[in-house]
Amino acid sequence: MSAHRDVVEKEMNKKISGLAAPEIMKEAMTYSLQAGGKRLRPILLLATLSAYGEKLGKGLAAACALEMIHTYSLIHDDLPSMDNDDLRRGKPTNHKVFGEAFAILAGDALLTYSFQILAADEENTPEIKIRLVELLSKCSGAEGMVGGQAADLQGENRSLTLEELEYIHLNKTGKLLMFSVVAGAIIAGASSKELQLFEAFALHLGLAFQIQDDILDIEGDVSKIGKPIGSDTTNHKSTYPALLTMDGAKEKLKEHVAEAKKMLAQTRLDIGLLEEITDLVAQRDH
Amino acid sequence: MSAHRDVVEKEMNKKISGLAAPEIMKEAMTYSLQAGGKRLRPILLLATLSAYGEKLGKGLAAACALEMIHTYSLIHDDLPSMDNDDLRRGKPTNHKVFGEAFAILAGDALLTYSFQILAADEENTPEIKIRLVELLSKCSGAEGMVGGQAADLQGENRSLTLEELEYIHLNKTGKLLMFSVVAGAIIAGASSKELQLFEAFALHLGLAFQIQDDILDIEGDVSKIGKPIGSDTTNHKSTYPALLTMDGAKEKLKEHVAEAKKMLAQTRLDIGLLEEITDLVAQRDH
Repeated sequence: MSAHRDVVEKEMNKKISGLAAPEIMKEAMTYSLQAGGKRLRPILLLATLSAYGEKLGKGLAAACALEMIHTYSLIHDDLPSMDNDDLRRGKPTNHKVFGEAFAILAGDALLTYSFQILAADEENTPEIKIRLVELLSKCSGAEGMVGGQAADLQGENRSLTLEELEYIHLNKTGKLLMFSVVAGAIIAGASSKELQLFEAFALHLGLAFQIQDDILDIEGDVSKIGKPIGSDTTNHKSTYPALLTMDGAKEKLKEHVAEAKKMLAQTRLDIGLLEEITDLVAQRDH
Repeated sequence: MSAHRDVVEKEMNKKISGLAAPEIMKEAMTYSLQAGGKRLRPILLLATLSAYGEKLGKGLAAACALEMIHTYSLIHDDLPSMDNDDLRRGKPTNHKVFGEAFAILAGDALLTYSFQILAADEENTPEIKIRLVELLSKCSGAEGMVGGQAADLQGENRSLTLEELEYIHLNKTGKLLMFSVVAGAIIAGASSKELQLFEAFALHLGLAFQIQDDILDIEGDVSKIGKPIGSDTTNHKSTYPALLTMDGAKEKLKEHVAEAKKMLAQTRLDIGLLEEITDLVAQRDH
């Protein structure tokens, strides 16, 4: 996995440094791309490709595009008018370093560039690429991640039902995770049955990811998660432990992990790495 | 032209209203899309298609995508941390109505959706669509419109050289106008010679557009342009009249119009509508 991470990070840096753009833009884009992170999405994409025994080069462009979209969403979410966060992974957020205007533009540029990267990829056919563009925009726009963030903002400072909470997470986090897995499968030429299984796998994985996030906000180690413990409670955010009790949330986490693995097993592919990632997501400490 | 405008406006409304997204997102997106405007970019795209005698339906998706990208850029440019504008075309700007957070998200959603629209278009082949996605992202991202906006912000409150001013306008406005024309030509199956001529045409048109913008900021009628006269001077913006004198700017405008028309004539296509648009751009009063 760390090899995958390195390859994607190098490729992203190469792509940004080659841009014919004002230096300030490249610096602001690079700052957040290099701010660490688990690179979960690119790793999921490449792990799905490897379940088919496909060479990873076919997924490299899509993996970079995916991480850039994820990074843009963090930059915009951190802005003063949104979540107003000064720190992200223990480092000053983009707008703290470059100012709000350039942070907004860096996000816009990363979002836009990710579609350019998908389109310019020479490893895949136009048919595959256009499917990826369509799915990525659907998963990351108003019907996906951006819609989830809007619903999250609207739900602030009031109690949500479990259904509302799941809508937010499904869209805000789940759909981009879903793209990560399904994009790998599309590139590998998956059957429609396999695509369905991978989609279901990713949605369970996404909910598991979010439940663990909520648990860490209460039981986590501040030095590992890079932000204050208890911020959800302080910000009156609805969370799984709040809605289900801590034991209930942990039970729910287990259920989603089990379902996710069941879906994987049904593909009858070489899913060892994807299972490993699933366990890491559920057991991570940051 | 007004028929083209109506078709594009109806299609955009249809597309947004069909989105499975939080109502607030759809309202914020629609608010700015419906705030009027000349629809110059979609009209240019459809006029280029019609120079080939192609049916306009082939360009409708791209025309909508284009207007959505343009609209997103206006929403983000108007934000307090950018140009801090309260009015746009005589109406409150998006963040004045929906707040900054939803304005940022509405922009993000429009940008993202435009790629979805291009990809989902059933009128064109994957080969054509992937060329459009690549060109649109290049023209609107860090190497185009977003880069131009960044350079514009960096150039505030200092005098620019004519070269710096042209870099800003070429990127901030010119490249999306270039996409408008070239996308129409790509859809129509233009030769590479024709693509070059259309690209050169559009770049001259873009500079003519910007010079007239600067002239209107001094000589325009406030009731027609929907914003205060003299705002460039108040904001210490570098402009063509400031750099070249008013007579020099008007001379430059004429030159770009003449060059633009020369490029059109060399295509030997049915360019009547494109010539008409060129004159309108140079002579417009708002």
